[in-house]
Amino acid sequence: MMQYDAGKQPLSLEEITKRLCDPASYAGVYHRPMHDKPMPSVTALADIMERLRALLFPGYYGNSEITPETMVYHMGAGLDHVARLLAEQITRGHCFSCTITDRESCKDCDKQAEEKTMRFLSALPRIRELLASDAQAAYIGDPAARSPGETIFCYPSLTALTHYRIAHELHHLDVRLIPRIITELAHSKTGIDIHPGAEIGSHFFIDHGTGVVIGETSIIGRNVRLYQGVTLGAKSFPKDDSGTLIKGIARHPIVEDDVIIYAGATILGRVTVGKGAVIGGNVWVTEDVPAGARISQKASD
Amino acid sequence: MMQYDAGKQPLSLEEITKRLCDPASYAGVYHRPMHDKPMPSVTALADIMERLRALLFPGYYGNSEITPETMVYHMGAGLDHVARLLAEQITRGHCFSCTITDRESCKDCDKQAEEKTMRFLSALPRIRELLASDAQAAYIGDPAARSPGETIFCYPSLTALTHYRIAHELHHLDVRLIPRIITELAHSKTGIDIHPGAEIGSHFFIDHGTGVVIGETSIIGRNVRLYQGVTLGAKSFPKDDSGTLIKGIARHPIVEDDVIIYAGATILGRVTVGKGAVIGGNVWVTEDVPAGARISQKASD
Amino acid sequence: MMQYDAGKQPLSLEEITKRLCDPASYAGVYHRPMHDKPMPSVTALADIMERLRALLFPGYYGNSEITPETMVYHMGAGLDHVARLLAEQITRGHCFSCTITDRESCKDCDKQAEEKTMRFLSALPRIRELLASDAQAAYIGDPAARSPGETIFCYPSLTALTHYRIAHELHHLDVRLIPRIITELAHSKTGIDIHPGAEIGSHFFIDHGTGVVIGETSIIGRNVRLYQGVTLGAKSFPKDDSGTLIKGIARHPIVEDDVIIYAGATILGRVTVGKGAVIGGNVWVTEDVPAGARISQKASD
Amino acid sequence: MMQYDAGKQPLSLEEITKRLCDPASYAGVYHRPMHDKPMPSVTALADIMERLRALLFPGYYGNSEITPETMVYHMGAGLDHVARLLAEQITRGHCFSCTITDRESCKDCDKQAEEKTMRFLSALPRIRELLASDAQAAYIGDPAARSPGETIFCYPSLTALTHYRIAHELHHLDVRLIPRIITELAHSKTGIDIHPGAEIGSHFFIDHGTGVVIGETSIIGRNVRLYQGVTLGAKSFPKDDSGTLIKGIARHPIVEDDVIIYAGATILGRVTVGKGAVIGGNVWVTEDVPAGARISQKASD
Amino acid sequence: MMQYDAGKQPLSLEEITKRLCDPASYAGVYHRPMHDKPMPSVTALADIMERLRALLFPGYYGNSEITPETMVYHMGAGLDHVARLLAEQITRGHCFSCTITDRESCKDCDKQAEEKTMRFLSALPRIRELLASDAQAAYIGDPAARSPGETIFCYPSLTALTHYRIAHELHHLDVRLIPRIITELAHSKTGIDIHPGAEIGSHFFIDHGTGVVIGETSIIGRNVRLYQGVTLGAKSFPKDDSGTLIKGIARHPIVEDDVIIYAGATILGRVTVGKGAVIGGNVWVTEDVPAGARISQKASD
Amino acid sequence: MMQYDAGKQPLSLEEITKRLCDPASYAGVYHRPMHDKPMPSVTALADIMERLRALLFPGYYGNSEITPETMVYHMGAGLDHVARLLAEQITRGHCFSCTITDRESCKDCDKQAEEKTMRFLSALPRIRELLASDAQAAYIGDPAARSPGETIFCYPSLTALTHYRIAHELHHLDVRLIPRIITELAHSKTGIDIHPGAEIGSHFFIDHGTGVVIGETSIIGRNVRLYQGVTLGAKSFPKDDSGTLIKGIARHPIVEDDVIIYAGATILGRVTVGKGAVIGGNVWVTEDVPAGARISQKASD
Repeated sequence: MMQYDAGKQPLSLEEITKRLCDPASYAGVYHRPMHDKPMPSVTALADIMERLRALLFPGYYGNSEITPETMVYHMGAGLDHVARLLAEQITRGHCFSCTITDRESCKDCDKQAEEKTMRFLSALPRIRELLASDAQAAYIGDPAARSPGETIFCYPSLTALTHYRIAHELHHLDVRLIPRIITELAHSKTGIDIHPGAEIGSHFFIDHGTGVVIGETSIIGRNVRLYQGVTLGAKSFPKDDSGTLIKGIARHPIVEDDVIIYAGATILGRVTVGKGAVIGGNVWVTEDVPAGARISQKASD
Repeated sequence: MMQYDAGKQPLSLEEITKRLCDPASYAGVYHRPMHDKPMPSVTALADIMERLRALLFPGYYGNSEITPETMVYHMGAGLDHVARLLAEQITRGHCFSCTITDRESCKDCDKQAEEKTMRFLSALPRIRELLASDAQAAYIGDPAARSPGETIFCYPSLTALTHYRIAHELHHLDVRLIPRIITELAHSKTGIDIHPGAEIGSHFFIDHGTGVVIGETSIIGRNVRLYQGVTLGAKSFPKDDSGTLIKGIARHPIVEDDVIIYAGATILGRVTVGKGAVIGGNVWVTEDVPAGARISQKASD
Repeated sequence: MMQYDAGKQPLSLEEITKRLCDPASYAGVYHRPMHDKPMPSVTALADIMERLRALLFPGYYGNSEITPETMVYHMGAGLDHVARLLAEQITRGHCFSCTITDRESCKDCDKQAEEKTMRFLSALPRIRELLASDAQAAYIGDPAARSPGETIFCYPSLTALTHYRIAHELHHLDVRLIPRIITELAHSKTGIDIHPGAEIGSHFFIDHGTGVVIGETSIIGRNVRLYQGVTLGAKSFPKDDSGTLIKGIARHPIVEDDVIIYAGATILGRVTVGKGAVIGGNVWVTEDVPAGARISQKASD
Repeated sequence: MMQYDAGKQPLSLEEITKRLCDPASYAGVYHRPMHDKPMPSVTALADIMERLRALLFPGYYGNSEITPETMVYHMGAGLDHVARLLAEQITRGHCFSCTITDRESCKDCDKQAEEKTMRFLSALPRIRELLASDAQAAYIGDPAARSPGETIFCYPSLTALTHYRIAHELHHLDVRLIPRIITELAHSKTGIDIHPGAEIGSHFFIDHGTGVVIGETSIIGRNVRLYQGVTLGAKSFPKDDSGTLIKGIARHPIVEDDVIIYAGATILGRVTVGKGAVIGGNVWVTEDVPAGARISQKASD
Repeated sequence: MMQYDAGKQPLSLEEITKRLCDPASYAGVYHRPMHDKPMPSVTALADIMERLRALLFPGYYGNSEITPETMVYHMGAGLDHVARLLAEQITRGHCFSCTITDRESCKDCDKQAEEKTMRFLSALPRIRELLASDAQAAYIGDPAARSPGETIFCYPSLTALTHYRIAHELHHLDVRLIPRIITELAHSKTGIDIHPGAEIGSHFFIDHGTGVVIGETSIIGRNVRLYQGVTLGAKSFPKDDSGTLIKGIARHPIVEDDVIIYAGATILGRVTVGKGAVIGGNVWVTEDVPAGARISQKASD
Repeated sequence: MMQYDAGKQPLSLEEITKRLCDPASYAGVYHRPMHDKPMPSVTALADIMERLRALLFPGYYGNSEITPETMVYHMGAGLDHVARLLAEQITRGHCFSCTITDRESCKDCDKQAEEKTMRFLSALPRIRELLASDAQAAYIGDPAARSPGETIFCYPSLTALTHYRIAHELHHLDVRLIPRIITELAHSKTGIDIHPGAEIGSHFFIDHGTGVVIGETSIIGRNVRLYQGVTLGAKSFPKDDSGTLIKGIARHPIVEDDVIIYAGATILGRVTVGKGAVIGGNVWVTEDVPAGARISQKASD
């Protein structure tokens, strides 16, 4: 354990500066983007998410006085704004991990980011359709909900899914870093951590949600309901010959349509939870569960 | 599973706008409040909570130089501000779910909101008394706490309970939507999700708190202590003949005075945990627990 | 249970003001700092954390165009700013709990705060070294991570550890209240609750993280990995003769090098988890675990 | 002259409060709007002016990436926003001076404000045409200007005229108080004080502008150019029998087409400066000036 | 004339830094306050002025819903806030020019600032009385004004006089630097430059105002009216034996009750403009003007 | 005079949108920058001026705790920030007026902007020297000034000259539009309008300042003092054969060393005011003035 040095004299500001500027000190924690592109901005992405939310749920977010008559203006103007802002962040995300030092080869970066942005925006009607089904599922699944609108406006499930469904689309477009930041924004706000790579069907609902984790290669069907603290995780992490983890292997569960998983349950590995199964609270699952099964923990005594 | 269409050409901005403005697309996700009242403002409610906190805990929040001599001015001015701001949000919350199209019938809305606001403010001394008992409970219940003041100023338990006790009062006054937003604000910040409808006695303390869920019809006595990840949830969700969940049934636990529930424990259904019982960590309870009982999970091996 | 008084007439603003200004009402919830020092500012501390992050991870945070040539200016200027801001908060934190009424005896407060600040800043190179090892551990430990840089920029683990390692240093310098606020900031953002008093070695990684609790007297070795929902807690809380909890006793686990603890596991009391042990998900541990052991919960059926 | 009382003891905060709350003290300086409408907001009006500027000069102000293809969205959305914001301020302006105590009679206030707003917005194309002519005049009239665009973007003349032409339109619609606040905003920024009631033709240019005053009943033709410090003022202020000034009488100059008035000149009273006349700097004019005349001050010696 | 060096090579950032840090370079433009007190804050003073305006003109500024019933709270709370904020700025202003290096001797600085602040606040009722008379004078003096309230809310004259009358009170209390900053704030906004040292009686009105200058030792009676561009200035600046200007000599005009001075007039030196005199526009006065006289420039021809 | 159409029906929002989007309507008032560069940002330039002020006057502006020991860090970091920000605005200013449609030819734009920025920053020590002389001149020239520091911190003269001297340097580097915006910022704040092209020697002071205009080709020597309302303007504006004004001709006065010009004086055309001359208030000068002459207006009577 590193030794605490409270007894020593404090250093001068000049000396601390010198030490922090020693390349040996900053080697592992210093970042210099290619071609002077600044880092992606978390604040800008939060703003973009607000604007997307206003496009997806008109009246609930953004301008609350929007009417069918003026909708075309607000949608068009909103899309135009978001297109510019998002393309900029996509380029930055790409530059973050880019290793091409030859500036000429990077020439198409901006164009590619713009094209990916337009592809993404083209998917908004489909994303909206999915989120409408999620709002319906939340209303049906929570006895405390009084209307689907209430779930759109104040349920963490809808927040997490709006972020996830947007991030997932960007993930498929091979956008770097940005999807992860978008789901982290929702994770921080709701405690629900869904990896952008997961595949999730329509009518999905997570009640309460704090502590839910849905791993990168999870596949979830339609009409599935989860409660707080549910983990869809990996069981083991195969390493290659050099001992480092192999990335990208399918290692998370498949959850089929109409499954319910109660609070605190943990499902690990590439197992399948069959259609309509119900997994009880705090249950630990590492093998396939047949369709229609009901698995539960016995109460302690 | 919905098919991913990366291969297709992106649409033009004009075409995307058109699709997002198709009534078939926005039907389920568009909100238009009655009589042009804007949506409740989450930002305004966060501000109102800050102001209420300053009224409840003078010196800890708001003006830190408040003295007994100047308190009357700051309390009076603070109440007057918060009265106007809150009444406005209460009206908006009511309009959110209102279905009365005849404007004349809505005439009293503003007056009712003002009256509910004054009723709510009248309860502040009582809410303060409860929160003082909660701060005392936090100090007594956490060996790491050095003073009750420290728990007021930086414990998530006090944040969650301040939001809950305020939301609960508004819930009893039949204020719509606003109580839920107020507890969600605390849920997002602390990971503690208490439904405004729950009844909670004095001297309540939740240590750490992340992942705690306390359902709508829970009843909690005095001097109860919970740890992170505890769920007071529903066991089953009875449906009516048409197959939709029945709303409002008593379906969450009753926890009597002096109970302690350790981390990750799950209590489900309208069961009673008797006075002075201690529920161990990660325990799963779906039946009544007698007073004074000690229930625990055996360590794995 | 306190009785709800909805039926009563609301009070006038004047009357509510009077009641809130009754010393009997505000006695337990009013704070008046010594010598007019204002309360510590959570906003100022969040700002200080941003500045420290920019000093620790140049290019990732703060000015993204920083180069080795200009680093000396940005480090020096950043340190000078943060020194003043932090010293002010340290003084406030001290005054918060100070009980010395004689102003003369307090004369050295400012100087002591400045000295503690310089001691703390002197530790920044060491803190950076630890955090670099944590970023490496996150990259190695998460198959979804594409580079160590990605973990610095968007993993909650790094956020929580940056806050913890800074707070821990301040805790050792006997700074009051401020360390706790700093870890609470991370707790609120990430759902990871690490007490500033815990001792944690290098190469530490917490995946997902929501719901993790690491208690005040925990000791964690090098190269340890935790998953969401893990608790390193206390088992019992010994009381003194007067029945109040005894503060400061070693009551949390010791976790040795190379241990992995999966999601939702709970380790309670001053037990030791031996070097290289692996604790399965949702497991409940209250006794020592030998080095190299693999403990897991059996799947339910 | 009021006597200075430095020698006296300062009062207590309580006593000062009491004195400031004495109705005799606040009688002449206290305002209570009818029916709880808040005061017009200078900040909101400054924001409305920014939005109108973006509608009038697309690309120069507001979204600088606007294109002919997206213009319809940005114009439509911008108009919809500004319509709501402006109608609200117009209502407030009306309430400011309203003396109708019977709330029923005020019922149409909101509707009238909305109608006036739509009438005003209908005039925007005409206002834009006038301002385009003013930009052309500025370019032609100032040897230091490199393009008309430069005058739109950074000349105080265009700022003052944008405010004036908007305020003038509102003045004609009998909007209260708001036009005056709008021209005061420009007065504060540019030092050019044009009363909303003045009539000013196209192609108007004021170089430098500081200190220019154009009174309420002034009439100015086309293609007129003024320099800094020019006054178009009133000569005398007729009083009625009771000795108070008579409001609304035509008392300011008529300046015909193609006139140039140099710095510091003062024209007072309902006199006419004939077409094409040139008035020299610092000149003092209180009688009619024939068309084509050149009037100048002799240099001092 | 200093030679322009565009031809030279630009310096490196390092070299420019070095040159700017050369003591010979910064000698005349570097400020280091005594005892680490920061500089007075122009932003804080602007905020203080807003708060004072809300205390002086309740309902017009600040909380527009203030009522006679709640006034005591808002006045008391507002005074308490402003007292702390202003005392801090007064201390800073004093430190700005302080040359006492011995910290012990400065001990009473804070106390003196607090006492001066209370003395100043004690004068607020009197300042309000004067400003009410000024609003009345503006309403009577401007045919375009529709009510005294309109002049309070949007006339530059009231803005300038509010700043002046406050600054003048502070000037009498021997507060350093702060009064000057306060009148400069109004100068910047209105173009009216009144030195805090000038003495001005009740019922004062400046129409339009841009370019008005009222010098340090001017004395102005009651019921005086000025127009834009009027100068009450000094004629000569006597120097002492060493050739530097002698500070503090009475060198500006005395303007007696009921005088009117029209636009652009210049009155220089310690001359007296007698009661009821009228000075015409652009007139140049350097000698006494008898009571009741009418002085005017002849129109040019 | 354009006819007012209040009687007409207001148009629909759709119709107004259509009219504002008619190319015939926006032709003269629409701007589209080359290559998607956004417009220069007035806000960004105001921020840059704040940063430059902190570099020029350390301790007065920016970080008020700067010491000789930490100065190198703050100067270096400040220069690095300002270099990036300014280069961006310089590029935008260039693009604003650029007419090169071939994107390839624009390739060097960014590099040129960076080089101009470094040339400009290289001049900062010289600019600081001039401004130090201006502060000295203000102190000596105003009997009301108590120290040179006071003039740096709150005199409009120093504000206007700081803006002018910076803009003038950029003007010489052939930077487009930006210098003009910088002097307009000062004009708006102080009422002093100095064209960036004017040449002004050291030890320059403008007292009060409102209404001062110094034209593009003016040349002012050392140790000159002006008062409010002074114009150094052009007498005539020669036109070319096509009738448009010829740009760039020397048309403003030359003012030699040690001249004083009192309030409201107007000097027009390429005349020379000889060394040491004194021009009285409101005087009108259109011919050369010999060295040492004293010119004044006679008082009216």
